[in-house]
Amino acid sequence: MTQTDAAPRKIWAHSADSHVMEPADLWTSRLPKRLADRAPRSERGDKYEILYIDGQQIDRQLNDFMDAMRPPGAFDLDVRLKDLDQEGVWSQLAFPSMGFWSVNITDRELGREVARAWNDWSHEEVMSRQDRIFTPAIVSLADVGDAVKEIERTAEMGFQAIFLPCGTRPGEEWGLDKWEPLWAAAEAHGTVLAFHIGTGGENVVYRGPGGAVVNYMETTYPGMRVVSHMVAGGALDRHPELKVVIAEGGAAWVPAIGDRMDEGYRQHGMFVRPKLSRLPSEIIRSQVYASFQHDPSAVEVIEGTGYTNVMWGDDYPHLEGTYGHTQETLHGLFTKVSPEIKHRVLRGTFEELFDVSPIPADKGL
Amino acid sequence: MTQTDAAPRKIWAHSADSHVMEPADLWTSRLPKRLADRAPRSERGDKYEILYIDGQQIDRQLNDFMDAMRPPGAFDLDVRLKDLDQEGVWSQLAFPSMGFWSVNITDRELGREVARAWNDWSHEEVMSRQDRIFTPAIVSLADVGDAVKEIERTAEMGFQAIFLPCGTRPGEEWGLDKWEPLWAAAEAHGTVLAFHIGTGGENVVYRGPGGAVVNYMETTYPGMRVVSHMVAGGALDRHPELKVVIAEGGAAWVPAIGDRMDEGYRQHGMFVRPKLSRLPSEIIRSQVYASFQHDPSAVEVIEGTGYTNVMWGDDYPHLEGTYGHTQETLHGLFTKVSPEIKHRVLRGTFEELFDVSPIPADKGL
Repeated sequence: MTQTDAAPRKIWAHSADSHVMEPADLWTSRLPKRLADRAPRSERGDKYEILYIDGQQIDRQLNDFMDAMRPPGAFDLDVRLKDLDQEGVWSQLAFPSMGFWSVNITDRELGREVARAWNDWSHEEVMSRQDRIFTPAIVSLADVGDAVKEIERTAEMGFQAIFLPCGTRPGEEWGLDKWEPLWAAAEAHGTVLAFHIGTGGENVVYRGPGGAVVNYMETTYPGMRVVSHMVAGGALDRHPELKVVIAEGGAAWVPAIGDRMDEGYRQHGMFVRPKLSRLPSEIIRSQVYASFQHDPSAVEVIEGTGYTNVMWGDDYPHLEGTYGHTQETLHGLFTKVSPEIKHRVLRGTFEELFDVSPIPADKGL
Repeated sequence: MTQTDAAPRKIWAHSADSHVMEPADLWTSRLPKRLADRAPRSERGDKYEILYIDGQQIDRQLNDFMDAMRPPGAFDLDVRLKDLDQEGVWSQLAFPSMGFWSVNITDRELGREVARAWNDWSHEEVMSRQDRIFTPAIVSLADVGDAVKEIERTAEMGFQAIFLPCGTRPGEEWGLDKWEPLWAAAEAHGTVLAFHIGTGGENVVYRGPGGAVVNYMETTYPGMRVVSHMVAGGALDRHPELKVVIAEGGAAWVPAIGDRMDEGYRQHGMFVRPKLSRLPSEIIRSQVYASFQHDPSAVEVIEGTGYTNVMWGDDYPHLEGTYGHTQETLHGLFTKVSPEIKHRVLRGTFEELFDVSPIPADKGL
């Protein structure tokens, strides 16, 4: 957006949901061949992109349109910072792209080394080269002890969050006691748990009429499910300093599920184990954060419900994101609410969770 | 609640989500033995209640506590009206109880006759005997033509809604073209589609820590899924007079999923089939209604989002309901909102959907 006298003032915001695009040689250049061959990689066929992860093969519809839409800085950090300046985005929590598929790995050595290599790459090639874009660390889900060690190692390197998938296999749900060491380590290091929508499960579950929108909705429920397990299972109650982000799934649903969980907790009280020291909605309001891109409701519900852990995200460089229309989106979102709520959603919540480079004083809100 | 000088004034409301408890001989007294034997029935063992439906057997945890909690009027219509007077509830949309299990029937004759018998029972024993409690009709899901005929028959008898389950088997999703005659018939007769949470699927999907609350949350997603299929599949767009109620699952999530579906519809537009004449959120705001029992957020989001199709429900005589604390609940819910919103949630939305006995002028709001 070119600034002219007639154009509205540029709004500057942090983005709690962006992505880095890893180079194709990330793992091949950093791991021995026997491991690199099993790390996540993508091959493009005529109609499908095929993802390979440790012997698993996942076909995805090829989407040339998405490539065409990709912002100039998707693969180049210096150009990316120019994209950010153009869009009015100061700091980004940038999730993985290919790295998301690391959650499919069940082999202990492979899981550990893929995570370490990704984190080393991010530290060297992303986070050490500038101070506006930072990533969560990846941790191995194949072994909780390895995940704890990687939290300790990456916290030392300056990582402030770990990425976790919303979808889980049966027996791996986030409320199970097996994850307790992970929560203890994250709490001890002030590491934010950054769950991202659309990860850890199948994203195309329906192929009938309206499938594209139905499937988009289907990615939403696993984010809600994470909250239900982390709260009802007691993890967030036992670790009151632990912070959970559900990225990209909207935010207006959070107070709704808080009330719904309260109703279940109270009305089905004789079946409830464990008992919690606070109501689910209280735990959610103090420890669960959510990010959205376009949703007016994410902003509109704040004043009425008092749920303020809402963050905007640009989802750069993805198709669901705001690249090319960030200013239009931001100007549209905040017409009905106070300057305090605008500040909270675009900057304050993010700055509460993360130690980030402050937005220069000459950048408007 | 006894009215004394010190007690707050009684608030009178309609309930968009209540239940009738059918007599054990409903089907045996109305169907030939060869069909009655296959109709839904319940047997109580030592630890489990066993439900039989046409050869299927479903074990449910026995819950003496729920029996002990049951309001006096659960099985007696005259006593029930006294319960309603005590609680401050004027009119109730009363869903089935055992009748819910009719959705499991796949045999055409059985499905048709079980539905007819239930509707005849409701007409004779519930709706003809008083004018405050009315039920949706049951329709057979085993054959859409039979369902259409039962809509026509029951509309003539004075039914204003049909009950439909939120959960569907694969190949039966509500967005599929096979249901088109049902939507056309419902629209033609002004019949409301009353979907109820916790029906048509498995309600205990997780047995780990926090299972009671996690499973309570799991019943919420199928209600959202109904909306996504009915909107994205185009049914509500093709039938703009059709009204959908999602009962018992809360209401504050509705604007959230409207925005989420808009984002999918716009950002993934090149994959979207069918195209809609209105945005998903517009369709939802004019045709989707939701009911809740206790949730403060269901009321709190109305002013900010402008989503007003919100109805309170008492869930009488169920454990998740407000029997015994209805007045406490109603007095607590409306402290922060305008009298207009209070009227809308407790009376106006319900009276917009249904032709009901008006609340006498001496009953306060």
